[in-house]
Amino acid sequence: MADIRLGILGFGFMGHEHMNLLSKIPEITVSAICDNVPSQMDDAPKGITKYTDMDDLINDPAVNTVLIVVPNPLHKEAAIKAAKAGKNIICEKPAALSVADYDEMVAAAKEAGVRFTVHQQRRHDHDYVPMKKVFRDGLVGKTYLIRSMMYGVNGNMHDWHIYPEMGGGMLYDWGIHLIDQVLDMVPEKVTSVYADIKKVINKDVDDYFLLVFRFESGLTAEIELGTYFLTPRREWMVLGDKGTAIFDVDFVNGMKETKKIVRTRHLLENVPGKITMTSAGPTRSFGPPEEGLLYEEPLPEVKSSEFDWFRGYIDAIENGTEFEITVEQVRRDLCIMDAFRESAKTGKAVEFES
Amino acid sequence: MADIRLGILGFGFMGHEHMNLLSKIPEITVSAICDNVPSQMDDAPKGITKYTDMDDLINDPAVNTVLIVVPNPLHKEAAIKAAKAGKNIICEKPAALSVADYDEMVAAAKEAGVRFTVHQQRRHDHDYVPMKKVFRDGLVGKTYLIRSMMYGVNGNMHDWHIYPEMGGGMLYDWGIHLIDQVLDMVPEKVTSVYADIKKVINKDVDDYFLLVFRFESGLTAEIELGTYFLTPRREWMVLGDKGTAIFDVDFVNGMKETKKIVRTRHLLENVPGKITMTSAGPTRSFGPPEEGLLYEEPLPEVKSSEFDWFRGYIDAIENGTEFEITVEQVRRDLCIMDAFRESAKTGKAVEFES
Repeated sequence: MADIRLGILGFGFMGHEHMNLLSKIPEITVSAICDNVPSQMDDAPKGITKYTDMDDLINDPAVNTVLIVVPNPLHKEAAIKAAKAGKNIICEKPAALSVADYDEMVAAAKEAGVRFTVHQQRRHDHDYVPMKKVFRDGLVGKTYLIRSMMYGVNGNMHDWHIYPEMGGGMLYDWGIHLIDQVLDMVPEKVTSVYADIKKVINKDVDDYFLLVFRFESGLTAEIELGTYFLTPRREWMVLGDKGTAIFDVDFVNGMKETKKIVRTRHLLENVPGKITMTSAGPTRSFGPPEEGLLYEEPLPEVKSSEFDWFRGYIDAIENGTEFEITVEQVRRDLCIMDAFRESAKTGKAVEFES
Repeated sequence: MADIRLGILGFGFMGHEHMNLLSKIPEITVSAICDNVPSQMDDAPKGITKYTDMDDLINDPAVNTVLIVVPNPLHKEAAIKAAKAGKNIICEKPAALSVADYDEMVAAAKEAGVRFTVHQQRRHDHDYVPMKKVFRDGLVGKTYLIRSMMYGVNGNMHDWHIYPEMGGGMLYDWGIHLIDQVLDMVPEKVTSVYADIKKVINKDVDDYFLLVFRFESGLTAEIELGTYFLTPRREWMVLGDKGTAIFDVDFVNGMKETKKIVRTRHLLENVPGKITMTSAGPTRSFGPPEEGLLYEEPLPEVKSSEFDWFRGYIDAIENGTEFEITVEQVRRDLCIMDAFRESAKTGKAVEFES
């Protein structure tokens, strides 16, 4: 049985979310919480140990694992202190605001012999997991394009996310998840990346981005996100030469989900050189498909839940096995994010792993 | 009154289409047609002069304007011959398979003192015209992104479009139109372009592309087209900081059109630094919009018809004014197409007009 006694360092929005979730996971005990704004902890469970100084939580002998949920710029200090105190570390994303900072955090954990992972839990998102299976099992044949889209209507960013120096903006907040999903889905080298990152509504932080990954097999993945993209939805597409898979969550119509693989019964058959005089719709190439040409299959059913990340964490601790989110993977996520930022800044594609 | 006596050079699919359209335009007389496959002309109107050799049509004194609808590799020869014969020239798109060829065609027309334009008629498409107005009139505020999408289900290309040496592939066939629309819509310099061009179903010619235009104001335009993208539709989006405009034609559901501008009544209002504990949907940034936040307005009504291109042509001939499609614009379309091809080949962004 795993002996996981957590201290939650930072009791803002995500600190509370963790507390709520962990209260349903008996294998993990939340032993203490900490926030430098005491009122943030007013609604904490009765009897829990509360601190306002991170050192006190980190050095509490009742805590053997520090869950770092403080603002992004404090991750490094917190992780290094926790490592030195001999505590295992779970860090919120983005793990660090630079690869150099991240390397210091990982080195500190290694030197201290403590375990380190990052709460990039969206590998278990229910819209992602079946699409990964579609891709990995070749359910649409040879995939040529993966699209991951996230559109919202708020415009403004919330809370500290409006401050660049806090690691604000959507690339840090959601981009890290969306990037991690694509890299987790496709076990290939990325040869180059290209990005367009904009500030549409927010003055100081990004709120729109297009990220293009070019993989060595020729596969392309695109991520597009906007906070002022008024067709609000979360949509995945995996497109191959044997079909198109879609997982679409329409935020307007009651979170209606469209999940399917669309296939064609046959391709256009057209003797080379023969003149086809029938015009189908606006052109011969595009227009209404003939009746019955398209048919649909369900997406594969793959179960996932909000508990999966911590279940995996418990397993790795109990069995001494590698975490699902490895330090190398997180480093790769951060490196490619830097490459995307460079691309957006220079307007050029950036070579990566080539 | 304009004296326009056309010879249609090439009587395949598009030659027939032109004949049908022109039969409804009284200001233009079709005096002769030509195809090197005589049976192609079997269904031509009775009494029309038919040729099988392009020289005969070009030199027919009853013809003062040559409409070039022969396969792409023959455009250059036909245009230069027509110019030398003193005939005005209307050339089908793509005007030429290289900028060098195009320059020779234009030079020949200039030297002969004949008029030259290209049948890039899709500037009058009914899905394009209102979106251009949305952009030009600032109806969604400051535009940050324009998307032009065309998805079909045929997979295979038809007829000669499967041959690269004929100017086959979708970039030449539809790309030229889609590029021309974007450049016509946005009166700005393009600073750089980036493209991903693939052969998904077809062995020798492109059938998928993503084209990204970066304009000097910071605006981005994206074109995406696929012949095996099984959510078949034509969709325009113009996204600004005051709304999102959409013109979507769903090829599956009876060509159903969704045309609207979506706006928000307000942006997220969130005092900086304040912790917002309400979680709306899957995150605080994305999820169902609050009731009444989004509202819709109709797109502006702008009339357009399949006759507009030739109406404009007639006006320019009658009044001696510049054609809607100028030689410089077509040259720019071809140059940027080359830049997109270079980008796709190298994986790098390509500077353009910067």
